[in-house]
Amino acid sequence: MSSERLAELNDTVTKTWAGIFDQSKFVRTIQEGKVDKKLYALYMFETFHYTYHNARNQALVGVRLPEGYTQYQKFCFEHANEETGHELMALHDVLSALGTKQKPVNLPKPLPATEVLIGYLYWISVQGNPLQRLGYSFWAENSYAYINPLVEKIKTTLALKTSQMTFFIAHSAIDKDHAEEVQRMIVNHCKTDEDWADVTRVAETSLRLTGNMLEDVYWEHQKLIRGEAKGYEFLANVE
Amino acid sequence: MSSERLAELNDTVTKTWAGIFDQSKFVRTIQEGKVDKKLYALYMFETFHYTYHNARNQALVGVRLPEGYTQYQKFCFEHANEETGHELMALHDVLSALGTKQKPVNLPKPLPATEVLIGYLYWISVQGNPLQRLGYSFWAENSYAYINPLVEKIKTTLALKTSQMTFFIAHSAIDKDHAEEVQRMIVNHCKTDEDWADVTRVAETSLRLTGNMLEDVYWEHQKLIRGEAKGYEFLANVE
Amino acid sequence: MSSERLAELNDTVTKTWAGIFDQSKFVRTIQEGKVDKKLYALYMFETFHYTYHNARNQALVGVRLPEGYTQYQKFCFEHANEETGHELMALHDVLSALGTKQKPVNLPKPLPATEVLIGYLYWISVQGNPLQRLGYSFWAENSYAYINPLVEKIKTTLALKTSQMTFFIAHSAIDKDHAEEVQRMIVNHCKTDEDWADVTRVAETSLRLTGNMLEDVYWEHQKLIRGEAKGYEFLANVE
Amino acid sequence: MSSERLAELNDTVTKTWAGIFDQSKFVRTIQEGKVDKKLYALYMFETFHYTYHNARNQALVGVRLPEGYTQYQKFCFEHANEETGHELMALHDVLSALGTKQKPVNLPKPLPATEVLIGYLYWISVQGNPLQRLGYSFWAENSYAYINPLVEKIKTTLALKTSQMTFFIAHSAIDKDHAEEVQRMIVNHCKTDEDWADVTRVAETSLRLTGNMLEDVYWEHQKLIRGEAKGYEFLANVE
Repeated sequence: MSSERLAELNDTVTKTWAGIFDQSKFVRTIQEGKVDKKLYALYMFETFHYTYHNARNQALVGVRLPEGYTQYQKFCFEHANEETGHELMALHDVLSALGTKQKPVNLPKPLPATEVLIGYLYWISVQGNPLQRLGYSFWAENSYAYINPLVEKIKTTLALKTSQMTFFIAHSAIDKDHAEEVQRMIVNHCKTDEDWADVTRVAETSLRLTGNMLEDVYWEHQKLIRGEAKGYEFLANVE
Repeated sequence: MSSERLAELNDTVTKTWAGIFDQSKFVRTIQEGKVDKKLYALYMFETFHYTYHNARNQALVGVRLPEGYTQYQKFCFEHANEETGHELMALHDVLSALGTKQKPVNLPKPLPATEVLIGYLYWISVQGNPLQRLGYSFWAENSYAYINPLVEKIKTTLALKTSQMTFFIAHSAIDKDHAEEVQRMIVNHCKTDEDWADVTRVAETSLRLTGNMLEDVYWEHQKLIRGEAKGYEFLANVE
Repeated sequence: MSSERLAELNDTVTKTWAGIFDQSKFVRTIQEGKVDKKLYALYMFETFHYTYHNARNQALVGVRLPEGYTQYQKFCFEHANEETGHELMALHDVLSALGTKQKPVNLPKPLPATEVLIGYLYWISVQGNPLQRLGYSFWAENSYAYINPLVEKIKTTLALKTSQMTFFIAHSAIDKDHAEEVQRMIVNHCKTDEDWADVTRVAETSLRLTGNMLEDVYWEHQKLIRGEAKGYEFLANVE
Repeated sequence: MSSERLAELNDTVTKTWAGIFDQSKFVRTIQEGKVDKKLYALYMFETFHYTYHNARNQALVGVRLPEGYTQYQKFCFEHANEETGHELMALHDVLSALGTKQKPVNLPKPLPATEVLIGYLYWISVQGNPLQRLGYSFWAENSYAYINPLVEKIKTTLALKTSQMTFFIAHSAIDKDHAEEVQRMIVNHCKTDEDWADVTRVAETSLRLTGNMLEDVYWEHQKLIRGEAKGYEFLANVE
């Protein structure tokens, strides 16, 4: 049963990605080689913002697990440990691309769509089926087939060095193992139809919200070009 | 400065232990070879209860750390990972000593003093100086000079095998490394007088509350002998 | 300054409502007199779901207020008190419209868009600027100019009695006073540009997410008609 | 059954108070007319500290109540509302007695026993039987038979005016109604033996911890006299 269910989960994720790639102005811009440093910077600052919370909400799942989930609890804390500080890689990369070393003093808060994603990830981490956050890990740890071509394109378009893209490189490397572990965790722990439905719903919803974040980045970039992106004035003259 | 402060912290802990050893009827009973399986079982069930929460409240410190504490955050999640499931060792040991394999269906809730300790550890984990929980780790990871002689005495008195005392053996082994790591963490992160005061206060208070727990165990044992320990009737005929 | 800022806030809300009314298939369906009991029921079950959390997340703002916010803290708890149990009115109304008295045993979980709204409201309640949740109250307590015509239309289309629409009637009555109180709270407490920006961002985002919820209800209704709305089979034969 | 159980609960509280009055050096000092402004100030600062949290942890019970507790949920939020800001009365009174208007800039943190009490009240508020916090309210709202004679004695000994003792006067007035409401809430909601046991355990434990706080105040006063009360140097010359 599990392998069939896993295939269905995978199918849902594939379709959701397809929907994003089909409609995303952000993805289109990159694919067409039109990304500029402003857009990349906005994207990486949002990546910094939500990544900051990933270790934290992952750990919160472990905190609330009831008796009888020792293996999954260890996974949560171990995974949280591995994710700790990854926001600093995102920050390093964007600062490096901008040719600066200092984090902007008044870095704007996350964009609304990013904050919605962050809030959702905490919500599904602290209540409901404790297995459900695995739906987020399922696609996130397995997203490099989708992300890598975009990252490569950004790299070429902006002439970035490998050493300036530590966040994506680190994740490509780490996430292969993680992806297998996440699958094992899902297969071992999902026992009921409801478990699978909960994991699948969180996978789809969190991926959609990530897609929304990408679009918010696109529109913030448009605002930035028009001189209307509050707080991002420091990017105005970035070429 | 740090080494002086560390010595003061150690001094506080040593004095607090001395106070406990001086006054504890629980400790006295063990030292005099008067421990019976009832008392040991009560102690191990309380150990099960509070240990259940240790990984959880440790992780909560990591969850709320602000930017700039990556090393300490990793320590919190790694340490939480290592502590996960240790309550099961305590449970294994008490069941083994009782000659049963099944956890009692209606195991009583923690004794009041145990619940006070648990509540305190969550409280100091979720608010206040995020360094302060290191005060608890400081003595807990370094307590085997105090605990081991008692454990040995229990082992002899009750004729327990090593394989029946996995909890204490595992902790003796693990905690040597931990103790050093905890010290390093304290020395690296405590910058101000207030930091040291906060760590010291939590060390002393959490150790005192642990001492109170031991006394509550002693008095519950007295009740058990008199047939008044509600919920622990299943221990009445244990020899 | 406050009155100008309040006008800007109001303007943002008005535009966001306009966007929803302009694009919402859910709103269109009602306006065209095409609402059926299935759609109404789906809407009211979602209303039940998110309303369940409103008193709770409102109270959480009060819990985390620092010193110096006594008036606002009292507002939070008082408001939470008043909102308590309102989900039961929504439930009463939908059951009454369906001609039943029993809550469905396996009422489906909130739709994804509803869960996103709920998660967001908790998130902005438990962290960030504690004033920001007032942005949600600002439009929610003042939404009856938008909602009432729709409610009236539903009432006529489905031939519902006033006694079957306790949720909306109670809120129309209560919310006039609330709206003024919320405005006073905003004006009294928002001191900085950032305060106003935070309140405005939450107002706009929470209203958009509510709009998304309405669309999710519309699409779930489409699924229901096609026999694909999992868990809502009990609505299949409702006329 | 309820009235019998209520009598038992009352009996437990009475005995616990008796134990405190019997052994408390703090109580003795007041009864013997030996209280000075230093001791009173220390006591009121601790009162300020724990009272700060009472509305907050009361509200948290309401936040986590599951469906079916509307009446009790309203009680929690209403009660939280009424308790809001009471710490300011305690602060007003101690500053007035000290003849100053400014809160000390670096008011020391709560004493360890106070922090233990605070942590325990949060713990029993956020998990376990949601009825259990009523055990705290039960004795706290009904404590003025014990407290009033002490307050009167302090008033006479220190020649304080009624207008300088707003905290105790307000509570005497409010708490009569509260006490009845709390009893009603207990009687209406406690259905099982476990409910009564949980309420009773929290009543006894929270009262004992309050007794411990009073003793910590006594010992801090001793330290203050010896010039060893860190952070309370500003009380050294108070007569």
